[in-house]
Amino acid sequence: MSSTTSRMRAEIGEQPEALRRTIGALLPRVAEIGALAGGTRQVLFIARGSSDNAAVYGRYLVESRAGRLGTLAAPSIATAYRRDLDLSGVLAVAISQSGKTEEIVETLDWAARCGARTVAVTNGAGSPLAEAAEVALVTDAGEELAVPATKTYTTQLAALAVLALGLGADADPADLLRVPDEVGRLIALTEASEQLPAIVEELAEVQGTVVSGRGIAFGTALELALKIKEACYLHAMGLSYADLLHGPIAVVDDRTPALLVAADSGPTLPGTIALARRVRGAGARAYGVGGGTGLAEACSRALPGPALPEWVAPLGLIVPGQLLVEALARRLGADPDVPRGLNKVTQTD
Amino acid sequence: MSSTTSRMRAEIGEQPEALRRTIGALLPRVAEIGALAGGTRQVLFIARGSSDNAAVYGRYLVESRAGRLGTLAAPSIATAYRRDLDLSGVLAVAISQSGKTEEIVETLDWAARCGARTVAVTNGAGSPLAEAAEVALVTDAGEELAVPATKTYTTQLAALAVLALGLGADADPADLLRVPDEVGRLIALTEASEQLPAIVEELAEVQGTVVSGRGIAFGTALELALKIKEACYLHAMGLSYADLLHGPIAVVDDRTPALLVAADSGPTLPGTIALARRVRGAGARAYGVGGGTGLAEACSRALPGPALPEWVAPLGLIVPGQLLVEALARRLGADPDVPRGLNKVTQTD
Repeated sequence: MSSTTSRMRAEIGEQPEALRRTIGALLPRVAEIGALAGGTRQVLFIARGSSDNAAVYGRYLVESRAGRLGTLAAPSIATAYRRDLDLSGVLAVAISQSGKTEEIVETLDWAARCGARTVAVTNGAGSPLAEAAEVALVTDAGEELAVPATKTYTTQLAALAVLALGLGADADPADLLRVPDEVGRLIALTEASEQLPAIVEELAEVQGTVVSGRGIAFGTALELALKIKEACYLHAMGLSYADLLHGPIAVVDDRTPALLVAADSGPTLPGTIALARRVRGAGARAYGVGGGTGLAEACSRALPGPALPEWVAPLGLIVPGQLLVEALARRLGADPDVPRGLNKVTQTD
Repeated sequence: MSSTTSRMRAEIGEQPEALRRTIGALLPRVAEIGALAGGTRQVLFIARGSSDNAAVYGRYLVESRAGRLGTLAAPSIATAYRRDLDLSGVLAVAISQSGKTEEIVETLDWAARCGARTVAVTNGAGSPLAEAAEVALVTDAGEELAVPATKTYTTQLAALAVLALGLGADADPADLLRVPDEVGRLIALTEASEQLPAIVEELAEVQGTVVSGRGIAFGTALELALKIKEACYLHAMGLSYADLLHGPIAVVDDRTPALLVAADSGPTLPGTIALARRVRGAGARAYGVGGGTGLAEACSRALPGPALPEWVAPLGLIVPGQLLVEALARRLGADPDVPRGLNKVTQTD
């Protein structure tokens, strides 16, 4: 393994173009999504792993901007308990990078049988999942070789932003068109930051960390925690701001810092800033990602976030985290491209 | 702090009577729940912390046994984003031990405004939450003084089992009546086990652990992980069996064991046994809780589980975990009754 480069790092850098292609391909399909979703009142997301973290973003987006209840499906109801539910009026959205995870395909088939209309979000054109859905939103991330998902994850988020627009979200499509350039700028900004190597050195000394965010940024916190676990083997707990205060705040101490992610604006930012102060008050370090100067000033150290409206901020907000994870994995002597115990396509039943 | 007793330990021992009183009070109300839920098609659970883990049980129960979609609410949609959703046809079930957490009361009020019918599950008779709901299922756990919830948690599960019966669950109420005695038997059995002190000694040497379960037992895994975090300050990750395989399996190693929980029967047991083998194949220790001889034999060490049908197994399955957490906290020099940084009633916004 080279000490200065990895497939994961290269794929992080491919995100501006991957996002540009994906948004260009999917934005014209807003009306088609609207037509499919016309008779539905709520959304059921079907996903695992990084795709499940994308689904958390989708859930907050359709609830906060499109006024529809969002639910994360429990696939075992379909695949293990084999119990049918009444899913009339439900738009089922299955998300899988490869489109080949059998559990996800099987659960989408189950949802259709139960009366749901179906959408697939996948990077696998022609994959079983794309074939199974009434509408397939195929992301154009290109081939992803590193096991930790980066460009397939952010392009999933782009597809979900388009989905929300199709559901009538109270949001400006022009914001989405700004994302690719902003992600490019953010990559350069993060790599130039003196904070990145400093945070890497400090995290290299700890056993675990808490990662927190709220609302639209909650999925980003979960995704950053997952990346830290799978590529750096640290004990990273992804928690919403509120859940953190209901118990797990006890684990934050001088050996367990918190990573806090937030958009530069939005109603959950003040609480995230208050959480940073509380973490530091408990004698722990708080690292901010995004959240503007307010969060940066409340934290011990901070990485810049995207200059994007809250509803599309997660498409950029994970990027500094990806760069942090890639650098931390190499610093710890791990190969970020091939984490132990993992394959690119995960099969569960 | 005494080295041999704690309020938490005393309250664990009070569970058979707390469950007996609660089941006796709530089981006669099945028809009332059925009448309220008559015009609804799905359930929205509103909760935080241990109550949220109870909600996960409730969700799998109503989906697998009562054929209704279950959703865990995102309270920030109500309290931070202040966005209304169409919740007609939804039964909103808010769960709070104290009944005083303002975020939960506010979110139940929001659900009612959005068209939902409302149920409260709380140990606080006359609390704001009990007053806010159309039907209040008041648990009779008695006063709980230790911060980590034990008897208020298992009695919440009992209330949710009654709720599922009210929703027409395909399950025998007589199973629920067997629970109090079985919990009493399980406490005695666990305390007599030579495995308990051995597991405590081994966990005292690690920095973190993964806790996994699936389907009906998933909420138990989350609750055990939360207890380990809040009372023992270990990095404990609660994950479903499937999510564990999608990334976090990388963290399991000779310093990071897995705790695996399962009922003695049910469709998720074989996968849990297979997971134990996979964890041990990765060079890590696996500790079983429940799951019968199949899981015990696949694990490095094991604690007994309740001899109960799957649908009510979680009411007993957490009990060996509670005893483990209480003993581990004392072994680590912590006071299980008063974890650092926590209060009994948590207020979040």
